[in-house]
Amino acid sequence: MSFADTPEPPYTAVIFTSLRTDGDLGYGVMSARMGELACEQPGYLGMESARDGLGITVSYWRDDAAAAAWKQVAEHLVAQQRGRDVWYEDYRVRVATVTREYGPPNPG
Amino acid sequence: MSFADTPEPPYTAVIFTSLRTDGDLGYGVMSARMGELACEQPGYLGMESARDGLGITVSYWRDDAAAAAWKQVAEHLVAQQRGRDVWYEDYRVRVATVTREYGPPNPG
Repeated sequence: MSFADTPEPPYTAVIFTSLRTDGDLGYGVMSARMGELACEQPGYLGMESARDGLGITVSYWRDDAAAAAWKQVAEHLVAQQRGRDVWYEDYRVRVATVTREYGPPNPG
Repeated sequence: MSFADTPEPPYTAVIFTSLRTDGDLGYGVMSARMGELACEQPGYLGMESARDGLGITVSYWRDDAAAAAWKQVAEHLVAQQRGRDVWYEDYRVRVATVTREYGPPNPG
């Protein structure tokens, strides 16, 4: 687990919040594969993810067009459908424009 | 754990990603208190949080001014300083404007 190495804003963040159904049902394999596939997309900047009960995955993109293109990648469309049908009890997707980013005053 | 009940966009999301230091050192109490205090602020819309290794907390605000005002609340300033000094190994704060939100086609 580490921080996404994002550039100077502005860029796009897709905040995906989810509640899983019980059991794996192929979710682990799909999740790893989608992580790999996202990395290969034009405009991909990074991803941060955590789950304890609620799951939060934030993916970062050069712009809204890059994020929208990722949503339409064929293999991802299949995963999204399977997510709606099987893996997710409920979810929210929020598309946002990051305008400011900062870390500790003395990093490291 | 549940979803923030946010209104129609636009609104502001503050994405706080963090790595904790070892040990609690008063973090649990502070974290609960900051959650309560945030709820009481003008323009607060909700919060979503998860941690497994990486922690991600997204707080939602009516606008950037409301988010900026929360950052300056006295008790929160103390917590932020203690966070930098003791609780967080490292962190990132990203302030973003949510432009689009959606959930499942047939919610529930």
